[in-house]
Amino acid sequence: MSAQSRTDAFYMAHAIRLAERGRYTTDPNPRVGCVLVREGEIVGEGAHMWAGEPHAEIHAIMAAGDRVRGATAYVTLEPCSHYGRTPPCSKALIDAGIARLVVAMTDPNPQVAGRGFQMCRDAGIEVVEGVLEEEARALNRGFIARMTGRLPYTRLKMAMSLDGRTAMASGESQWITGAAARCEVQRLRASSSAVVTGIGSILDDDSRLTVRAEPDGVAAVPCEPGRSYRQPLRVVVDSTLRMPVDAQCLSEPGATLVATTSTDADKRSALEQAGASCLVLPANAEGRVDLVALWRYLGDQEACNDILLETGATLAGEALTLGLVDELHLFMAPTLMGGQARPLFELGPLAKMSDQRRLLIEDVRAFGSDWRILARPEAVANTRLE
Amino acid sequence: MSAQSRTDAFYMAHAIRLAERGRYTTDPNPRVGCVLVREGEIVGEGAHMWAGEPHAEIHAIMAAGDRVRGATAYVTLEPCSHYGRTPPCSKALIDAGIARLVVAMTDPNPQVAGRGFQMCRDAGIEVVEGVLEEEARALNRGFIARMTGRLPYTRLKMAMSLDGRTAMASGESQWITGAAARCEVQRLRASSSAVVTGIGSILDDDSRLTVRAEPDGVAAVPCEPGRSYRQPLRVVVDSTLRMPVDAQCLSEPGATLVATTSTDADKRSALEQAGASCLVLPANAEGRVDLVALWRYLGDQEACNDILLETGATLAGEALTLGLVDELHLFMAPTLMGGQARPLFELGPLAKMSDQRRLLIEDVRAFGSDWRILARPEAVANTRLE
Repeated sequence: MSAQSRTDAFYMAHAIRLAERGRYTTDPNPRVGCVLVREGEIVGEGAHMWAGEPHAEIHAIMAAGDRVRGATAYVTLEPCSHYGRTPPCSKALIDAGIARLVVAMTDPNPQVAGRGFQMCRDAGIEVVEGVLEEEARALNRGFIARMTGRLPYTRLKMAMSLDGRTAMASGESQWITGAAARCEVQRLRASSSAVVTGIGSILDDDSRLTVRAEPDGVAAVPCEPGRSYRQPLRVVVDSTLRMPVDAQCLSEPGATLVATTSTDADKRSALEQAGASCLVLPANAEGRVDLVALWRYLGDQEACNDILLETGATLAGEALTLGLVDELHLFMAPTLMGGQARPLFELGPLAKMSDQRRLLIEDVRAFGSDWRILARPEAVANTRLE
Repeated sequence: MSAQSRTDAFYMAHAIRLAERGRYTTDPNPRVGCVLVREGEIVGEGAHMWAGEPHAEIHAIMAAGDRVRGATAYVTLEPCSHYGRTPPCSKALIDAGIARLVVAMTDPNPQVAGRGFQMCRDAGIEVVEGVLEEEARALNRGFIARMTGRLPYTRLKMAMSLDGRTAMASGESQWITGAAARCEVQRLRASSSAVVTGIGSILDDDSRLTVRAEPDGVAAVPCEPGRSYRQPLRVVVDSTLRMPVDAQCLSEPGATLVATTSTDADKRSALEQAGASCLVLPANAEGRVDLVALWRYLGDQEACNDILLETGATLAGEALTLGLVDELHLFMAPTLMGGQARPLFELGPLAKMSDQRRLLIEDVRAFGSDWRILARPEAVANTRLE
């Protein structure tokens, strides 16, 4: 590795940290960071924070002022080449007079990938690609999925006892895990485009499904002063429209979508009056909402990059079986609930050991007195539905 | 902490490492290590290895030869003061002419605790107690339990999927976990006085319950050349004597005890002819073997220090409910077996969240692609049955 490569990786790592500032806010846009360096000095830096507001490159150029001329720009994602809500960043970098452009990953949209690079090269700028590419891709897994025509990147979050139970037989379940785990769940919600749950969670727990700044009085999700949180779209899978019109989530900030197979116009209009949108989807063989159709809708029509699935054994098992789940975030509390308590996954009648669903465990770490297991399905890890 | 204290802790840590050499062999005796130090130099060291063979102090004295005179002896356990199969080690240390005795913990038997120290003090030797006491106690939890009149120290080992299942609905279960986890189970067996299982494990899997030197061809348990393993007592809880006379474990090296409530003389005599011992115990309210009576028998009559319980949901749940379990060793494989697979624990109809059994997780670590969770029951952690 040359001295130049080490220097490039060093500043790109800083650009990735900047991009992470937008984790909870850029949706549906990608998280992007930019650093401008001239003669070994950072002369400007920036991150994209909110859709419709300036991109990372523009923030950095404005911060650098005159010192941008002749600088190297480190950007985590290929600068855009099209006129959208803002003029293209490639043009802004060219106009600003940068001498060199270092980028972590190309635009994931195959139809425009490389155009930003080409604009810069045509203007005589040296372009280096692929620096810390894996780290940059990790920032925007859902955006990449959407841009490449795949279904939204899906994280399944569940809280369980050590013996794999989510609730007592009675359904009682609240507060299995402690405050640290609940804060992490808030961060998962805040970084998602949509939170999907089953009607059971609404009926059992009247879940609000909102991002709360300070659950238990602990700051979980950072927020700019004077701005409120972006609330992910709340999606309730409710095949037979059992959703009560006084469900708590309907009166929270942000939108609630009820996905159903029911054509009962009265129920739908009552729910719509209560603040929900209703979406009628095809039914699967069991008469329940076709989850693949729902995921496709959320990606295509709602521009969802990242879905957080927070639900019980049936819907979770179905999503897993359909190959919709990319990551499992299992929060394990140090407790035993016994063989009569509710299971983690209904996976149907798996008869033989060879039917089991193997996972790859990527990380195991403590959150207070709970532990989070981060895993991904072995079989579908690289074979997402296109 | 004085320089002398640091020096004492340094050599005691070495003595504890020596004591660990006896982990798989000293039973029913304690694991003990001894280091002799004169003028900053280790002049002799030793560990107790097998019951009936020399104690750690004797090995160390013999290794030191003349250089023992005026030395400091570091011993993990108070030197014995009584004539048993060997003369008392306190006398041997006095006769050898040591000047100073540093000990980690007193003899756990309250009836003789302190006598070894007194003998040494009476002979003019300076005695220091309690150096690395917690670490030394961890070597001999079972021995301490037995010497203080408590039931054997019990480790419950279970292998489960990520969703807390031990077998498919069909009972098929072998090889949930991988080779590294299975090696650790061999080490758990080898360091136990007895391995207790339910008749279900015999009927389903025909478990051998023996220590195997090299499961999967990997050296799991160290062994002195030319000696075979100490095989823990195999105990099968079999209330109605369903044990087949051709069970594999009956033809393995070591002894098998069948604990039953059945008085069927024919079945008993058939099993005894096949190599088992049968023990008739009182029944509990459900007509099954009274586990507390079995534990008491194993401690009192079989001199068991450490019990390894390897069993299914019913017996494991019962032992846990009775407060017999000191440690849980849960090996978690990265797989999902679904809601119809067999549960980890039957704990009866726990109705409310307040009925759940809280645990303290002490350690979570990887064994190959599996993870071991080491936990202890919160409620009974310090309230063992006396």
